[in-house]
Amino acid sequence: MIKLNEHYTEIGNNYLFAEITKRVKEYKEKHPDKIVISLGIGDVTQAIVPAVIEAIHKATDEMANPKTLRGYAPYEGYDFLIDAILKHDFLERGIAIEADEIFVSDGAKSDTGNIGDILGYENQIAITDPAYPVYVDTNKMNGREIELLPCTPENHFVPAFPAKTADVIYLCYPNNPTGTVLTKEQLKKWVDYALEHQSLILFDAAYEAFISQPNIPHSIYEIEGAQKVAIEFRSFSKTAGFTGMRAGYTIVPKALTAQTSKGETLSLNMMWKRRQSTKFNGTAYIVQRGAEAIFTPDGQKQIRRVINYYMENAKIIKRSLEALGLVTYGGVNAPYIWVQTPNHISSWEFFDLLLNKGQVVGTPGSGFGQAGEGFFRFTAFGNRKSTLEAVERIKKMFS
Amino acid sequence: MIKLNEHYTEIGNNYLFAEITKRVKEYKEKHPDKIVISLGIGDVTQAIVPAVIEAIHKATDEMANPKTLRGYAPYEGYDFLIDAILKHDFLERGIAIEADEIFVSDGAKSDTGNIGDILGYENQIAITDPAYPVYVDTNKMNGREIELLPCTPENHFVPAFPAKTADVIYLCYPNNPTGTVLTKEQLKKWVDYALEHQSLILFDAAYEAFISQPNIPHSIYEIEGAQKVAIEFRSFSKTAGFTGMRAGYTIVPKALTAQTSKGETLSLNMMWKRRQSTKFNGTAYIVQRGAEAIFTPDGQKQIRRVINYYMENAKIIKRSLEALGLVTYGGVNAPYIWVQTPNHISSWEFFDLLLNKGQVVGTPGSGFGQAGEGFFRFTAFGNRKSTLEAVERIKKMFS
Repeated sequence: MIKLNEHYTEIGNNYLFAEITKRVKEYKEKHPDKIVISLGIGDVTQAIVPAVIEAIHKATDEMANPKTLRGYAPYEGYDFLIDAILKHDFLERGIAIEADEIFVSDGAKSDTGNIGDILGYENQIAITDPAYPVYVDTNKMNGREIELLPCTPENHFVPAFPAKTADVIYLCYPNNPTGTVLTKEQLKKWVDYALEHQSLILFDAAYEAFISQPNIPHSIYEIEGAQKVAIEFRSFSKTAGFTGMRAGYTIVPKALTAQTSKGETLSLNMMWKRRQSTKFNGTAYIVQRGAEAIFTPDGQKQIRRVINYYMENAKIIKRSLEALGLVTYGGVNAPYIWVQTPNHISSWEFFDLLLNKGQVVGTPGSGFGQAGEGFFRFTAFGNRKSTLEAVERIKKMFS
Repeated sequence: MIKLNEHYTEIGNNYLFAEITKRVKEYKEKHPDKIVISLGIGDVTQAIVPAVIEAIHKATDEMANPKTLRGYAPYEGYDFLIDAILKHDFLERGIAIEADEIFVSDGAKSDTGNIGDILGYENQIAITDPAYPVYVDTNKMNGREIELLPCTPENHFVPAFPAKTADVIYLCYPNNPTGTVLTKEQLKKWVDYALEHQSLILFDAAYEAFISQPNIPHSIYEIEGAQKVAIEFRSFSKTAGFTGMRAGYTIVPKALTAQTSKGETLSLNMMWKRRQSTKFNGTAYIVQRGAEAIFTPDGQKQIRRVINYYMENAKIIKRSLEALGLVTYGGVNAPYIWVQTPNHISSWEFFDLLLNKGQVVGTPGSGFGQAGEGFFRFTAFGNRKSTLEAVERIKKMFS
């Protein structure tokens, strides 16, 4: 008789964004005349830049010719992309990562979800609260014990160390959903904690390209000792509009080892390589060529223009909400604005209010965890016109 | 302190194809003057067909325009692709599958690997031997007990029921690596077994497009009752040259349910949907448009031509090996030829012999399991010239 993974009964039926999609769909069906503006799921709106488009066309033509056809890709990604990542994202910043520590994938969501495959079920997990739902859900799916670390205005969104020593710690900076950051000094405390307790830090740096201020680490490997304790996840989704193109990468340093219960030392780099070569068959060649083009001088100029465009949206949203007397966080080093709901209404009440009265969609803070209750996330990924229109609608609702 | 998934110590260090790649690379480095022909990993060599290329170009141009940009895809795949699959692969064949039972992914390897996420660790697993290494490796990674079901000339490659009642059974037909098939009557016995024991059949139908004879099921759902017991995996990799493009799909019927230990009935369709929406972020839009084009009249004609080309290779390999007195199986309803090694030498000895003396690469049967020892797999996915040349080299070696 089939035995199910019964931990699935311990998680809610709906993944957060699936629930939002459902509510918006229902609203649209009931009100076909209304135009709904989404500052919600965090999807991009600006075209993929010309350098990337051109590279994908070129690679697609290669697939039309048996002489230049590319079949199965290397499980870890093509050298041309790995070399571009290595040079641009690490070596030029003075971070000594090596090529075989980089694993290209179909996106950071898959990797942050699948990384649990190489970890034991008995790890004590610490996750900042609020957080990207994938961290909590995937650990619940494996029945692991989780301690949430509240990040609120009271602690300036800097999580305190867990009460119970954590074996694995999820950190995401610049943070989704709060848009807040850690300074190098603040992040160093976590690296030191991990070194002291032989813990693993799973560092989600999907939003590093949006950092505008100095002294904010773009990579955890800017902190001494981090290569012994941290895995870092990177995404092209927001940096280069790849949400529908699917590519990201993960760094698993070779210095990162742990002991089995029998005292055998295993390399997490080797374990992840084994995981990926067994349960994944590489990222599409044409997509990897597109990702490579991000790192060309043209590509860099073009994506920087788009990032600046989004960060201008962030300023518009932040300023407008503050002008209404709402309290906001983030939006300076991240494309997310985290706003306190007015009159202490709940996150989902605020969601329904905005949808029904203003036809504006955002993300309820409580969907990111208990400490997100009473907050709401707006994203800067709209186009300018929609962002301005959304802000106008909210102004009308609250003045 | 980090706790590892220690089951990783129970699997070999190398995924089979990674090991082959390594040996070939080493040989080439030592003998840069030699031209190695691969009939090994099962990668395609023929160009992706024009209908698909055209669709990908068109979709890529959509991504260059904010008005037609597609961001995050639906987790289950776009309706346009699901509808094409539904109509062509099922409804037109008289199989009543529904749209929300189809899950598009980045390939059958990911899905056959990840399906274990929704299953308990205590399932008793039955896997035919030899088999695609992913089945055994991913179950070992979760510490599940596996009974192997030998498929050899003695039982005409029809597996006997397991000695210990199986909760989950892996079947792949047309079979990789043996190239053999089950008739409807033979497959029905397994569906009946699963119905009787409330077992789950994981049916890998990646090679159904290569079936040339009647009465061989293309889908397990051709068998009555299968929707209550089977999940089916499909691939575009071999059918349409998508090994480097990455797309496939999985059918999880809504009729497929199982009980928890507390007597709660869960839908595996809902569980897989939750898994995919939490740990996967959809297949690239441009790749899904490419896959959709496979189902157009032009696409169908074009891929059929390629499939016929490969099956002509299969005939050439099979006939030539048989002319040398070698005993072969498969190659009629599948692109794989399974050959008994000459003089009872081991699979890896035959591999090294072919590589060193003939510069021909195949896949050692023992890499697919113990019952594959003494056999060797050739694939029909070479181009005609290389296939003829490989056959000539083997002729020279053995005559």
